[in-house]
Amino acid sequence: MNYKMISNILGWLLIFESMFLAVPMLTAVVYWESTFWAFLGTAAFCLAAGVLITRKKPANTTLYSREGFIIVALSWIILSLFGALPFILTGVIPSFVDALFEAVSGFSTTGSTIMNDVESAPRSILMWRSFTHWVGGMGVLVFIMAFIPLSGGQNMHIMKAESPGPSVGKLVPHVKTTAMLLYTIYLVMTLAEFVTLLIAGMDAFEALNTAFATAGTGGMGVRNTSMGEYAPHIQIIVTVFMALFAINFNTYFFLIHAKFREAFTTEVLVFLGIFAASSAVIALNINSIYMDMGTSVRHSAFTVAAIMSTTGFSTEDFNLWPELSRSLIVMLMFVGGCAGSTSGGIKISRILILFKSMGKELEVLIHPKQVKKIKIDGHPIEHEVVRSVNVYMVGYVLVFAVSMVVLSFDNMDLITNFTAVASAINNVGPGLDLVGPASNFSVFSDPVKLVLIFDMLTGRLELFPILLLFSPATWKK
Amino acid sequence: MNYKMISNILGWLLIFESMFLAVPMLTAVVYWESTFWAFLGTAAFCLAAGVLITRKKPANTTLYSREGFIIVALSWIILSLFGALPFILTGVIPSFVDALFEAVSGFSTTGSTIMNDVESAPRSILMWRSFTHWVGGMGVLVFIMAFIPLSGGQNMHIMKAESPGPSVGKLVPHVKTTAMLLYTIYLVMTLAEFVTLLIAGMDAFEALNTAFATAGTGGMGVRNTSMGEYAPHIQIIVTVFMALFAINFNTYFFLIHAKFREAFTTEVLVFLGIFAASSAVIALNINSIYMDMGTSVRHSAFTVAAIMSTTGFSTEDFNLWPELSRSLIVMLMFVGGCAGSTSGGIKISRILILFKSMGKELEVLIHPKQVKKIKIDGHPIEHEVVRSVNVYMVGYVLVFAVSMVVLSFDNMDLITNFTAVASAINNVGPGLDLVGPASNFSVFSDPVKLVLIFDMLTGRLELFPILLLFSPATWKK
Repeated sequence: MNYKMISNILGWLLIFESMFLAVPMLTAVVYWESTFWAFLGTAAFCLAAGVLITRKKPANTTLYSREGFIIVALSWIILSLFGALPFILTGVIPSFVDALFEAVSGFSTTGSTIMNDVESAPRSILMWRSFTHWVGGMGVLVFIMAFIPLSGGQNMHIMKAESPGPSVGKLVPHVKTTAMLLYTIYLVMTLAEFVTLLIAGMDAFEALNTAFATAGTGGMGVRNTSMGEYAPHIQIIVTVFMALFAINFNTYFFLIHAKFREAFTTEVLVFLGIFAASSAVIALNINSIYMDMGTSVRHSAFTVAAIMSTTGFSTEDFNLWPELSRSLIVMLMFVGGCAGSTSGGIKISRILILFKSMGKELEVLIHPKQVKKIKIDGHPIEHEVVRSVNVYMVGYVLVFAVSMVVLSFDNMDLITNFTAVASAINNVGPGLDLVGPASNFSVFSDPVKLVLIFDMLTGRLELFPILLLFSPATWKK
Repeated sequence: MNYKMISNILGWLLIFESMFLAVPMLTAVVYWESTFWAFLGTAAFCLAAGVLITRKKPANTTLYSREGFIIVALSWIILSLFGALPFILTGVIPSFVDALFEAVSGFSTTGSTIMNDVESAPRSILMWRSFTHWVGGMGVLVFIMAFIPLSGGQNMHIMKAESPGPSVGKLVPHVKTTAMLLYTIYLVMTLAEFVTLLIAGMDAFEALNTAFATAGTGGMGVRNTSMGEYAPHIQIIVTVFMALFAINFNTYFFLIHAKFREAFTTEVLVFLGIFAASSAVIALNINSIYMDMGTSVRHSAFTVAAIMSTTGFSTEDFNLWPELSRSLIVMLMFVGGCAGSTSGGIKISRILILFKSMGKELEVLIHPKQVKKIKIDGHPIEHEVVRSVNVYMVGYVLVFAVSMVVLSFDNMDLITNFTAVASAINNVGPGLDLVGPASNFSVFSDPVKLVLIFDMLTGRLELFPILLLFSPATWKK
C-alpha cells in the first residue's frame, strides 16, 4: 500500500476543501453573518493541514486499484468530517453525530436532514449544505486529480471507483479530457438552471441553492416545505432540471455533436419511459385529492423526477398520498436514474444488465455449453461488467439487510425503517412515515444515524470503496 | 425436447395424485361427509387421465437438464390444478382462482389461506389441505421417480431441480437410495410428532393434521386461531418439531450413524444461533405485553420457529407485537431454514455462501489475479454453486420487485404488499397488517392472487424451474 501517495492526495483534498469553504464564507460576508468565523476557522485548519501533508512529494506515485478504492473511501469520509465542523462551530447542529449526518447527507447528495427548521438557520449554513451537494454530485477526486501535480496517468482507478454506474466509458481518448468535458457540462447546466430560476422570479440566493441542490441531485432546500411554496412554473422548471440531471451526461455530449442515435441509448429511453408511465399512474391515483388533472400531473411529475433523480425535493407530502402512489414511489427510490449522471439508486443500466443477464443465465441452464454475451444497444457487455453488477446487487442486498436489523432496535415502524435505509443507500432524501417529506431524520438514535451515514456513503460510492475499507484483505501486506 | 417422456412422467404424477386423494376420501368416510364424492370424482379423473397417458412407454427415456426443469415446473402446476378440484366441487371454495391459490399454498407448503372460517369446513377438506403440505414438503417427483418403471438413472436432474438448497449432496452413492433414506427420515419424524401430540392429549384428527402441516413446514391449521387455543405444552411440542423440520435432514442421517462432527455443520449451528438470539430478543421485547417471562419465551420461540421453518403457525397475533419484534419477524421470513430441510426462504446455507462470496469478491477487487475458492466446513464451494447462488439472489430480487409493482395496484398498504410477497416467495404463510396471522389472503384481487400463486411456486421450486417455463429459450429447438 502506497501510504505516502494516499496521504498526499488526501492532503490535496483538504486544500481543495478549504477553497470550497470560500463559498459559504462569502455568503456569510454578503449577509453579514457571524458564522463567517466558523467557516474561516475550518478553512484555515483544512488549508494548514493540507499544506503540511502535501509539502513532500512522494517518490513513488504508482497507484493500484487497491489504493484507488482506499483513496476514494477515505476522501469522502475526510471531506465529510471536516465539512461537519462548521455545523458544530456555529452551534447550528451541536451534536457531532448529527453534524456528520448532515455533512455526509450533503456530500453523498442524499439530502436527508436532521434539522427541524431550516428557515431559521443562517444563510451561509444553508449555502454550505447546498454546495456540498454540488461538490458531491460529480465526485470531487477526479476533479482534483486533474489539477494536482502528481498524477501519473493512473487516475482511471480513481475515476472507476468514484463514478456512478456499472462501467466508465471514455468519451474521448484521454481520461482527463473526458473528465473535464463532463465537469463543463455539469457547470453549464447548473448555470442554466440558476439563470432560468432567476428569470422565473426566484431570488438569487434561493436560485443558487436550488441549482446546486438540483445539479447534485441532493435535495436539501432552504424552506421548511421544500419546493411546496414556490409558484407552479418554478416547480415545473425544477422538475425538468431534476430529470435532466438524472440522464447520462454522455447524452448531452452526443447531442452537442448531433449524434442523436448515440445520445438516446436504451438506458435513456427506459428512464424516460419509466418516468412517463409512473407520472401518469400517480397522477391518476392522486387526482382524487387535487381534483384537477393539471395540478395532479404537476405534483406527480415533480415527485417522480425528485425520486428517480434521487434529489428528494417535494412539492407535496407524498407520504399522505394513496397506497398505490406510495408503493410506486418506494420502488422508484431503488431504480434511480441513469449511470453517468449525478443521480443515485441502483440505476437503469444496472437494472437492464440484471434482467438481461438473468435471461442469459436461464439459457445457460438449458444449454450449458453456450457462451453468449448479452448486448445493450448492440454493444456486447463484458463478462467482467456483468459479474460486477451481480456482485453489486448481492452486496447491496446484504448491506440493506444488515442495516435493517440494526434499525429495528430503534423500535420504529417497518415502513419508517425500510424507507429510511432505502432513502439512505439510494441517496434519495425523504422516506415515508416518520421520515416522510414533512418530517426529518432526527427521530433516530445515534447508532442508527451512524448506520445511515454508512449507508449514504456506501450508496454514493456504489458499495465497493466503503466495503473494502472494512475488509481485512485490503490491509493485508 | 423429449415431449413423450415429459407427458409420461406427468401421467404417472396424476396416478400418484389419485392415490394421495385416498387420504381425504378416507377422512370423508370416517366422518361420514358428502365431500367423499368430490374426492372420488377427482381421484377417478386423475387415475383415468394418468392411465391413458402412461399406457405407452416412450422409446427414448433420456432426460436432459432442460426436461428436468420443465417436468418439475409442470408437475407442481398440474398437482395444484387437480388438487384444487375438490375445493371447487365441494363448494367450499367456489372461485377457481381462490381454489388454485389454496392448492398451490398447500403443495408449496406456504400455508396462506383465503378461507375465512376453517372450523366450519368439512374435515376431509382440512385433511386434504394438511396432506398437500406433507406431499409438497419433501417434493413428490423424486419419490415418484423411485417407483415408476422408466427412469434411466438420470433423475439427478429432477432431484436437483426439486430439492431445496444450493447443492444436492449424496449421502450414499445412489440417488435413489439417498432419496429413500430422506423420505424414511421424513416419515419417521412425522410419525414421532403425531404420536407425541396424541400422548400430549390432542385428538387424533388434529394431531395428524398438525403433524402433516409441521412436517411439510406448511402451516394450514384446523382452527381459526391456528395454535392459539392449544395448551402450552402442546405449543412447545410443535415448536420443537417446527425447528427439527427446518434442519438439514442430513444431520439426522449423521446423528443415527453417530457422526456428530458431520451432523452439526456450520449451517445448522448458524440456524440454531439465529433461532436462539431472535427468540431471546423478541421475548424481551414482548414481555411488556405478557408480563411473564415464561409465557413471553414460549410465544417468541414458537413464532421464531414458525417463521424460520416457514411453517407459519401462530399462537399469538404477532402483527400486534412491538415494532422491533415485527421487523425481526419479517427479516426471519427471508432467512428461512437449512438447505435439505422442508423449510422455505432463502436458506441459511445460501446466506452463508452470499456473505463468504462477497468477502471473496472484495479480495478479488484488490488482488485481481488471486483465484481462491470459498470454504464452508472446510469443504471448498465450487465456483458453479457460488455462481448459481448469486444468480438465484438476483432472480429472487427481480421476481420480488416485479411482484411488488403488480401488488401495488390493489392499493393496499406497503407493509401488506411487502409481507404478502415475502410470505409467498418464502413459503411462510402469514404476513403483517392485512395479511397478518389473524387475517387471510382473501382481501386481494384475482390478478394479485395469481401473482402470489406464481411467487409461491417460484419460491418453493427455488426460481429456476418456473422461470424457465416462461423463458422463450426453453422452447426453442
